[in-house]
Amino acid sequence: MNTDDKLKPLREQIDAIDAQILDLLNRRARVAQEVGHIKAETNAPVFRPEREAQVLRKVAERNPGPLDGGDVQTIFREIMSSCRALERRVAVAYLGPTGTFTEQAVYQQFGHAIEGISCASIDEIFRSVEAGTADFGVVPIENSSEGAINRTLDLLLQTTLSISGELSIPVHHSLMTKSGTMDGVTRICAHSQALAQCQVWLNQNYPNIERQAVASNGEAARIASEDPTAAAIAGEIAGQRYNLGIVKAHVQDDPHNRTRFAVVGRLQPAPSGKDQTSLVLAVPNKAGAVYNLLAPLSKHGVSMTRFESRPARIGTWEYYFYVDVEGHAQDEKVAAALAELKQNAAFFKLLGSYPFSL
Amino acid sequence: MNTDDKLKPLREQIDAIDAQILDLLNRRARVAQEVGHIKAETNAPVFRPEREAQVLRKVAERNPGPLDGGDVQTIFREIMSSCRALERRVAVAYLGPTGTFTEQAVYQQFGHAIEGISCASIDEIFRSVEAGTADFGVVPIENSSEGAINRTLDLLLQTTLSISGELSIPVHHSLMTKSGTMDGVTRICAHSQALAQCQVWLNQNYPNIERQAVASNGEAARIASEDPTAAAIAGEIAGQRYNLGIVKAHVQDDPHNRTRFAVVGRLQPAPSGKDQTSLVLAVPNKAGAVYNLLAPLSKHGVSMTRFESRPARIGTWEYYFYVDVEGHAQDEKVAAALAELKQNAAFFKLLGSYPFSL
Repeated sequence: MNTDDKLKPLREQIDAIDAQILDLLNRRARVAQEVGHIKAETNAPVFRPEREAQVLRKVAERNPGPLDGGDVQTIFREIMSSCRALERRVAVAYLGPTGTFTEQAVYQQFGHAIEGISCASIDEIFRSVEAGTADFGVVPIENSSEGAINRTLDLLLQTTLSISGELSIPVHHSLMTKSGTMDGVTRICAHSQALAQCQVWLNQNYPNIERQAVASNGEAARIASEDPTAAAIAGEIAGQRYNLGIVKAHVQDDPHNRTRFAVVGRLQPAPSGKDQTSLVLAVPNKAGAVYNLLAPLSKHGVSMTRFESRPARIGTWEYYFYVDVEGHAQDEKVAAALAELKQNAAFFKLLGSYPFSL
Repeated sequence: MNTDDKLKPLREQIDAIDAQILDLLNRRARVAQEVGHIKAETNAPVFRPEREAQVLRKVAERNPGPLDGGDVQTIFREIMSSCRALERRVAVAYLGPTGTFTEQAVYQQFGHAIEGISCASIDEIFRSVEAGTADFGVVPIENSSEGAINRTLDLLLQTTLSISGELSIPVHHSLMTKSGTMDGVTRICAHSQALAQCQVWLNQNYPNIERQAVASNGEAARIASEDPTAAAIAGEIAGQRYNLGIVKAHVQDDPHNRTRFAVVGRLQPAPSGKDQTSLVLAVPNKAGAVYNLLAPLSKHGVSMTRFESRPARIGTWEYYFYVDVEGHAQDEKVAAALAELKQNAAFFKLLGSYPFSL
């Protein structure tokens, strides 16, 4: 019996299973349509991030294998996306150009059955969601090699929108030069964090070339584009912008270098059971007051997952503190802690509560 | 009864359906593993494009709705991708940087459960597949606004690899300038096809600004980067490369502007029932011989879906003819036509037969 003869009965089994899956998918879609009708009566939102997060967690928990849990979530994200599209394709604004990794972030959050709106700037993303042209915006908020995206933080301070989700996607660094080779290169430039992230690889491959920390990886790419004795470590998109050639792709030691994105919208998600809350605080005097300011969190047993201070570029305060805590603002202990925080702070803005990133 | 109370029983139905889908997905995966064991005994390939094309066609045909047929195919592409990953994640080389639309083309063909290999050039993609580092390569072959990608055509002429699939993805044009505004702009540059594709929009918005056809949209972007009186119409990635600001995104009249990609590999797909065959031909004298050369196609009732002649840059012939025909090289009438074509042609290379793009 040849291979194809052996495979035939198995393929017939797969076809039969596929027919059942297809039937179930459409049964699911019909129930989702009923959900849509009820939502339409009350103007309830089409996209409920907390509900989708719950479904994705449940399938990963229930998944008996052999399929990989993450792969199963990818499948269910597309299932929910296409069911949602029967009501309406959610419009999502993101930082263009079309076809870059920010668009991939959109698909990772919303699946493919959406309407993507490519924007030229982070400001335009906020504007198009505030104006109702888009239902949601996906904005970069932090790069694990270059820190916070300041423009996003500034706009979060001013906007009427809430954060309704967050996600992160992998980012790769490459070693690049004007010529695409290391001939004549005497220094390697990058942001200090990027240099640190590539040090094992650099020690193995270019132990004797000087490393120079510069303001950002984008700046490193600019330098390399003007100076043939300089190499840059940067994302390949920055390299393309400055017409650099790739000496070696993916040189970071940690393959898990990521960019974090926030989803912004008019929606305020209900608790999903595993949530995160983002807020911004300010106090008149940085040195003395920060510790006291945060005391209510530990008092009420609320874990802080992120704390970042930055000099104010807008508003009246010297510093703003961007804080993420575990839990939803409607959770009892989080609500108690936030109420106290608000009393102590000179400035307090709740950016949003949303499902904890998967 | 409030909305959430009304939705509860429907959500319980959805959860029950999801549990059944999850069960079926893993049953499918177990059968796919058996398929993998049999394939491993005979070194049969993990990825069978003809088989996957058949599955996708079948689900679209069988799909009773309400789900959209294309959305259902997206779901099943991910299902097959994750089942395939249980045997091995197929390694696919593509034109970097990571995160550009060429990577999206890879996901569109193979789903997300693969190992992507970002390459710096089209040559490197061919090399990495020829060397076995990658199982497949995805190379751009034709852009609907700028025509054939010559480097890919040259490499197809030389390679030992076959075309095992093709796909296309949408491409958007934007109006861009150095300043990001139209202040002082006296001409709009682009490839003539891109100008034609945007003419309705240009007539409405900039009827009095001169339009200038240049060699490519990339060249238009370069001109705009050096001359503040010139605007360019080009893809946003080209605009980024030359540091242009976006005046207006998505200005093409036809939202279906696309780039075509070929999948290359060592694999030669079996017939899927709806296939296409690509070949390259040459004859000593262009003017006289082309019509006669192609006569066997009409004689055997084989439809030609694409015909492109280009001046030879390599090899001994003046022109090469890139021809796509309907059907698989193993189909009786295609086989007969190809045998005669081969006799008449001074140069004949079968590039591959593969499932017709969905």
